[in-house]
Amino acid sequence: MVTLEYTVEKPLNREPPLEKLVSSFITEKDGYDRNHGPIPYLDAAAHRVGVYGTVSNILSLSIADLSSLPQHTVICALQCAGNRRHTMRTKLKEVNGIDWFDGAVMNCRWRGPRLRDVLLKSGVKIPRDKWSSAHVAFACFQTPCQDDEWYGASIELQRAMREDADVILALEMNNRPLTPNHGYPVRVVTPGIAGARSVKWLDRITVQLTESPNYYQQHDYKILPPEADCVEKAKNYWHRVPAIQDMPVNSVIAVPANESKVEVGEDGCTEVKGYALPGGEDGPVVRVEVSTDGGSTWEDAELIKCVENDEKDVSLKWAWCLWRTKVKLEKGAGKKLLSRATDKGGNVQARCPQWNLRGVAYNGYGESKDLEVA
Amino acid sequence: MVTLEYTVEKPLNREPPLEKLVSSFITEKDGYDRNHGPIPYLDAAAHRVGVYGTVSNILSLSIADLSSLPQHTVICALQCAGNRRHTMRTKLKEVNGIDWFDGAVMNCRWRGPRLRDVLLKSGVKIPRDKWSSAHVAFACFQTPCQDDEWYGASIELQRAMREDADVILALEMNNRPLTPNHGYPVRVVTPGIAGARSVKWLDRITVQLTESPNYYQQHDYKILPPEADCVEKAKNYWHRVPAIQDMPVNSVIAVPANESKVEVGEDGCTEVKGYALPGGEDGPVVRVEVSTDGGSTWEDAELIKCVENDEKDVSLKWAWCLWRTKVKLEKGAGKKLLSRATDKGGNVQARCPQWNLRGVAYNGYGESKDLEVA
Repeated sequence: MVTLEYTVEKPLNREPPLEKLVSSFITEKDGYDRNHGPIPYLDAAAHRVGVYGTVSNILSLSIADLSSLPQHTVICALQCAGNRRHTMRTKLKEVNGIDWFDGAVMNCRWRGPRLRDVLLKSGVKIPRDKWSSAHVAFACFQTPCQDDEWYGASIELQRAMREDADVILALEMNNRPLTPNHGYPVRVVTPGIAGARSVKWLDRITVQLTESPNYYQQHDYKILPPEADCVEKAKNYWHRVPAIQDMPVNSVIAVPANESKVEVGEDGCTEVKGYALPGGEDGPVVRVEVSTDGGSTWEDAELIKCVENDEKDVSLKWAWCLWRTKVKLEKGAGKKLLSRATDKGGNVQARCPQWNLRGVAYNGYGESKDLEVA
Repeated sequence: MVTLEYTVEKPLNREPPLEKLVSSFITEKDGYDRNHGPIPYLDAAAHRVGVYGTVSNILSLSIADLSSLPQHTVICALQCAGNRRHTMRTKLKEVNGIDWFDGAVMNCRWRGPRLRDVLLKSGVKIPRDKWSSAHVAFACFQTPCQDDEWYGASIELQRAMREDADVILALEMNNRPLTPNHGYPVRVVTPGIAGARSVKWLDRITVQLTESPNYYQQHDYKILPPEADCVEKAKNYWHRVPAIQDMPVNSVIAVPANESKVEVGEDGCTEVKGYALPGGEDGPVVRVEVSTDGGSTWEDAELIKCVENDEKDVSLKWAWCLWRTKVKLEKGAGKKLLSRATDKGGNVQARCPQWNLRGVAYNGYGESKDLEVA
């Protein structure tokens, strides 16, 4: 009997407490979980990944086959496109979707063959000058989902084929085989791109001219324009709006938490901590600033980057950045802190993005409010 | 490596010579093949059938699990909805689809658990008075298809739950395990219903309120109205036209073949042979008539029914009927024979059905023309 955990009606969706999340550079376990159906417990020995579409050779790869290809390590932040939806919902206007706070992100060490190597093995038959408009689709057929019979997503073929884009078929997370909830025995990891495209329990890869026809590529995970302000009106926009790929530059304040009592040290200062995320391929984060006066003035925070000694050659381009600083706050209630990140590509977090119905890709200033400074 | 035969681009589609087809009541092998993708060679020991949807218990059934349920034998004709398309195309007007002659049908002995028993085990949660508008969907995710990522179909829940409708999950065909091209290790067999719903290599069964969303349920295998006379116009009709379920009463003349030279015996007669099919649940065929004068007068043919000694209790309701007769034909060229069948439900084959774009469910009189009587 294949074991399933959770159901189509009640999939596992959870995020860790924010203070705990930023306590380590690598999210060892207890990262967030985002699912649209049950979690299957698969037999790695029997599992196969098919490669189809506009290729010279259809492949059916076992986990052993994938393990025999050159293995590549990527440290990257994987985030739900709906991360920080709660802020959009409360700050701007009600949106549709799970009420994620700031914890639907995890920064892990992933390892497995490059998708590129699998595609080269299969032989991509789409000419190189068409790669930017062609797609690689990923599919998991293990269980039904809430809105489709299967789960699917796609990314640009161009991105998949670029060695420096580091798209891999991960067999390991943090030096161990994937856990069932993170896609055992194999999942896609698409650095810089919304987590929805990093398909878990991967069954099929298809090289094709069109995007994945799956519901979650076509009718979810898109930034609808503000005029699409209800489900009915959204119907006219889904097919006109691109699917989210790269996530935007972002930062959040984890400590002190909203509505908390803030202790002031002997030096009169309060410690502020958080994480920051680069926009898409434009990492790493190069600067995080904090403001105690609503954004009039900013002070640089210290960026904390941690890699193990033997991983000096692993890029931190795709990783999140933990940061900390100390600020002086006057005593009293209703105090507020803001954070803003800048990445290597020059993308700077703006005060607040435009509202969208699904509440995705929120990347307004990080914020900790209603602080009581004692 | 999972072996695949044929491809998405060139699936296996073939029919046997008609004279050979009607040479035995049971189509032992070399029946027709209709596919929308490659043929997978699956490992029965690893294969699972999931049961999902509006049920009390989600199930994941191994082939051993299916074998441990009461086994039921059905002799039934399985036919492609496009059988006889060539006649519609040539007699009426061009249609879209594979150029099937009269051989896209096979009459086999199928054995396996009743779908009903599997659904009872799972616990259908849809109230009984909704069964006629609810559906049981079948899915195969083993390979992509020409027009969808997977193959799916559905039938009425009511039909699936009726013991006398004999819908089974076949593990055997003609007393042997299914062959890969006929769905090994398990396929659905839906007696009376178009073969497109008898899903091969069955992966998932879903009890649901709506029909299967799959392309082959929604945008193919439908009898479009005559005004939908091109692909573009058809787009306005797919969602308004029901998916084909029960196939209509039918008969064809296998011998003598079209455009053949006909020998006349010493008795001045010529042997005529063919098969006849009942309409949906209205079997068996009770009468086949043959006309030598273009349908002005008809003579009864002899119906041949063959079951093995130990299968006297197996119904022939769903089976085809082989028939033969002798007719007197005047010497000369351009002679024509017609056949027409009547089933137990009183359905009589009409001279010619209305044209439809996909050329499905053609059931005009059986016909053998351009005969040269020597």
